[in-house]
Amino acid sequence: MHIAGEMVIGQSAVMGREGQMKAIDPSRNVEIDPPFGMASAADLEKACSLAAAAFDTYRETGLEQRAQFLEKIADNIVAIGPQLIERAMQESGLPQARLEGERGRTVNQLRLFAKVVRDGVFLNATVDSALPERTPPRSDIRMRKIAIGPVAVFGASNFPLAFSVAGGDTASALAAGCPVIVKAHPAHLGTSELVGKAVQKAVADCGLPEGVFSMLIGGIETGSNLVAHPVIKAVGFTGSRFGGLALMRIAAARKEPIPVYAEMSSINPVFLLPGALKEKGAQVAQGFADSLTMGAGQFCTNPGLLIGLESAELDAFTTAAAAAVQAKPSTTMLTPGIHKAYESGVEKLSALEGVTLLAQGAPAAGCQARPHLYSVDVDTFLSTAALEAENFGPSSVLIRAKTAEDLKRFAEHLEGQLTATVQATADDRDIAGSLLPTLERKVGRILFNGFPTGVEVSHAMVHGGPFPSTSDSRTTSVGATAIDRFLRPVSYQDVPSYLLPQAIADNNPLNVPRIVNGELQAKKA
Amino acid sequence: MHIAGEMVIGQSAVMGREGQMKAIDPSRNVEIDPPFGMASAADLEKACSLAAAAFDTYRETGLEQRAQFLEKIADNIVAIGPQLIERAMQESGLPQARLEGERGRTVNQLRLFAKVVRDGVFLNATVDSALPERTPPRSDIRMRKIAIGPVAVFGASNFPLAFSVAGGDTASALAAGCPVIVKAHPAHLGTSELVGKAVQKAVADCGLPEGVFSMLIGGIETGSNLVAHPVIKAVGFTGSRFGGLALMRIAAARKEPIPVYAEMSSINPVFLLPGALKEKGAQVAQGFADSLTMGAGQFCTNPGLLIGLESAELDAFTTAAAAAVQAKPSTTMLTPGIHKAYESGVEKLSALEGVTLLAQGAPAAGCQARPHLYSVDVDTFLSTAALEAENFGPSSVLIRAKTAEDLKRFAEHLEGQLTATVQATADDRDIAGSLLPTLERKVGRILFNGFPTGVEVSHAMVHGGPFPSTSDSRTTSVGATAIDRFLRPVSYQDVPSYLLPQAIADNNPLNVPRIVNGELQAKKA
Repeated sequence: MHIAGEMVIGQSAVMGREGQMKAIDPSRNVEIDPPFGMASAADLEKACSLAAAAFDTYRETGLEQRAQFLEKIADNIVAIGPQLIERAMQESGLPQARLEGERGRTVNQLRLFAKVVRDGVFLNATVDSALPERTPPRSDIRMRKIAIGPVAVFGASNFPLAFSVAGGDTASALAAGCPVIVKAHPAHLGTSELVGKAVQKAVADCGLPEGVFSMLIGGIETGSNLVAHPVIKAVGFTGSRFGGLALMRIAAARKEPIPVYAEMSSINPVFLLPGALKEKGAQVAQGFADSLTMGAGQFCTNPGLLIGLESAELDAFTTAAAAAVQAKPSTTMLTPGIHKAYESGVEKLSALEGVTLLAQGAPAAGCQARPHLYSVDVDTFLSTAALEAENFGPSSVLIRAKTAEDLKRFAEHLEGQLTATVQATADDRDIAGSLLPTLERKVGRILFNGFPTGVEVSHAMVHGGPFPSTSDSRTTSVGATAIDRFLRPVSYQDVPSYLLPQAIADNNPLNVPRIVNGELQAKKA
Repeated sequence: MHIAGEMVIGQSAVMGREGQMKAIDPSRNVEIDPPFGMASAADLEKACSLAAAAFDTYRETGLEQRAQFLEKIADNIVAIGPQLIERAMQESGLPQARLEGERGRTVNQLRLFAKVVRDGVFLNATVDSALPERTPPRSDIRMRKIAIGPVAVFGASNFPLAFSVAGGDTASALAAGCPVIVKAHPAHLGTSELVGKAVQKAVADCGLPEGVFSMLIGGIETGSNLVAHPVIKAVGFTGSRFGGLALMRIAAARKEPIPVYAEMSSINPVFLLPGALKEKGAQVAQGFADSLTMGAGQFCTNPGLLIGLESAELDAFTTAAAAAVQAKPSTTMLTPGIHKAYESGVEKLSALEGVTLLAQGAPAAGCQARPHLYSVDVDTFLSTAALEAENFGPSSVLIRAKTAEDLKRFAEHLEGQLTATVQATADDRDIAGSLLPTLERKVGRILFNGFPTGVEVSHAMVHGGPFPSTSDSRTTSVGATAIDRFLRPVSYQDVPSYLLPQAIADNNPLNVPRIVNGELQAKKA
């Protein structure tokens, strides 16, 4: 497929005329052809008005039709073939195997949401029958969830496929019945065009209104104007805290404020409990270094903090972890900007009083990130706010605590996080149990004896967490329940049967799970 | 029970020392004894720290224990006896039968949430089994929802029982496992003390940590400081748009922004379709006048707008509605402030160009509201923003439209509303069907051939709607799913069985519905 530098506006491929931008190959720090045309206000207006026009039709597509549309997007992405992987490698510096895996994740995610749509649990179909004999009589009242409206999606730089144009936000919003307008990430414009056109083709393949999907190219102003546009009813974002907070402010200042689902930053603490350090300290050290440096450390769930109790076992772990980090190569980061921010973060960390550099990976060149491991005592950590800032990349801080109480203090002190990891054996049961209530309050996912990188796309996944890890702790951006973000309930009271939506019609024609007079009824097999 | 002028702070009854306030009897416009002491910053701090201390214990109470607590609150409210009704009558000007009905609604609501808790649907328990043979292997991942944290509740003036101290927000937050701190409404301080102490006693009766419930007395500053307090994690509010927007701003400006569920204002349009006017115009006119003037028109769901197509039938309806409104008495409003605002609203409406006064009820005295019905043509309505402001009380505007297209334009023009009502017969099927998609986008509840006042507390009820009717269209403040507002999901990955919460433990010990490997499993009978 030819990469033309174009946007997707409904069924049109549009060369923007409001300036140009190019993607950058970070491994060589050079611009890549072709130039991409940026969106004008009229382009944005066109995408929004198409989305508004498509909304009522698209949100009432049958469950099977909508599921097939999601599967068609997956098929069309696969059909792009090796070109997608090659372009994504060039634009992101990420290796082939990683991007092939990410493509698999992206299409599986679309297929999971096809299943979610067919299952119909998301409809929350509920029926309360009329009680004419009651005093006062009860009306017939039914409820279902409907799509919230057109959604603006901002992809992430670090997952050019799985968290971008056809990533989790887009897949869950489309599954909910919302038209989507993506603002393409400037770091992978060619990848975005390829995927955007695959989605555009799926819209046509399935005979859906063209406004179901658009993808704009532009800068901060285009993004801001998109979030401020009255047609947009919700926002999905993955990126920096700075960017997320800016979008939250714009959304809150609208005449009609709208929800922003921003997944922003997290340092993902790892608790090294005594039993685990004793039983498998060296193995945990290696696993940590692998998790830390995977994808040049560019994961929202990168393990940026470790904490353990001072002991011979912690000393041994420290030595092993330092050696493991030291043995790691430096690898290319996603963009020169991210690389520069990482270098600056490393410099700041190194300059902090009480912070010791334990290890560095192999020397870096160009846009490569050199892995870093630091050490600090718990009191210094608790009194140094700068140590809590996310340093996006392969850098982590090991905190030495004196008592189990320190672990609890540390946990209570934490800001909201996406994840917390506990390395523990059965011997650590009491201390792990005492940490759990605090961790539940602080994070969206608690994991034992693994590492937080690698976010499963499944029904029980929560990729979310209290502020500032996300803007809305009530939701997840990964997994089946991500669809709930883009729905709102509507009640139908005494609505005649010939006007009732099928989800709540008599005799359950869609065969979806329903709560009928307070009792949950699973679908019939 | 003696009304002492006290707050409830955990298990203490506290006489505030930061100034005093008194309730007012609006029917006589005189203050009522005793004086109530207002909260100091230390009182607020104490309530918050008790709530924080209670949270981890309370949120993990067993479902049965929590359900019994809600039922105990209901029992304790009933046990107050006639004194509660007498004091509420005195403070609100509402009649005995209405308040007795409201007490029934309040205790039924608590009992509904006891059922919701026992059912366990709200836990969203989800289990994804480990897939060790898969490439890459899948971990064991489980999810449940937990309480979001201590909740601040602001009761409404117009439902001194059902939307106040132990009303829907408190009941649903407690059901979710959240400690609650109520800011008592100044319009019914004595009623609040009686109910607050009934809740306080239920906390003790059930052996729960005292911080599960507190009730503060104070002014705007106390309310603002409560919403700004770091311990508070969500806010429930029913009241004016002005008040709701102020709380939203405070919540958004916090270091950690929190959700505000504000139910603010609505004018609840009623569509008079031709078939209905023909078949039962006079009956609809009388039903409308009854709904409009019930409770002095002080309902969030009061029918403030009517629209019909110009015709002999609409003329007949207009005559009948005017006569019905004219026959209505003036009745006492909740507070002198609300009465003053209503009078001013009526004055503004009367002065608007193109607006005709159709009818007034019987002359008013003191704090009584005189019912008003106005008429305007559709183009004037669409070009006059002032006609869209809620005038809290028994005033309504009948809009004369020329074509079915006008009805659609009107519907599209509307701001977000709690309800829309359609008076229709089978003859109106096409026009009703064409309005439905627009109404779904604009309101939380669509009802046919009834009136919007009277909000059923059931599983399918949505008392919510797009901004500005509420701050968050994704939720309802009435009905079983109101509990969802105070929950957030947490994932547990490879957490050892001895640390797993029961809701997601193996073999489903709580017997709650769960989604297991993507399949919904209802609880066993």
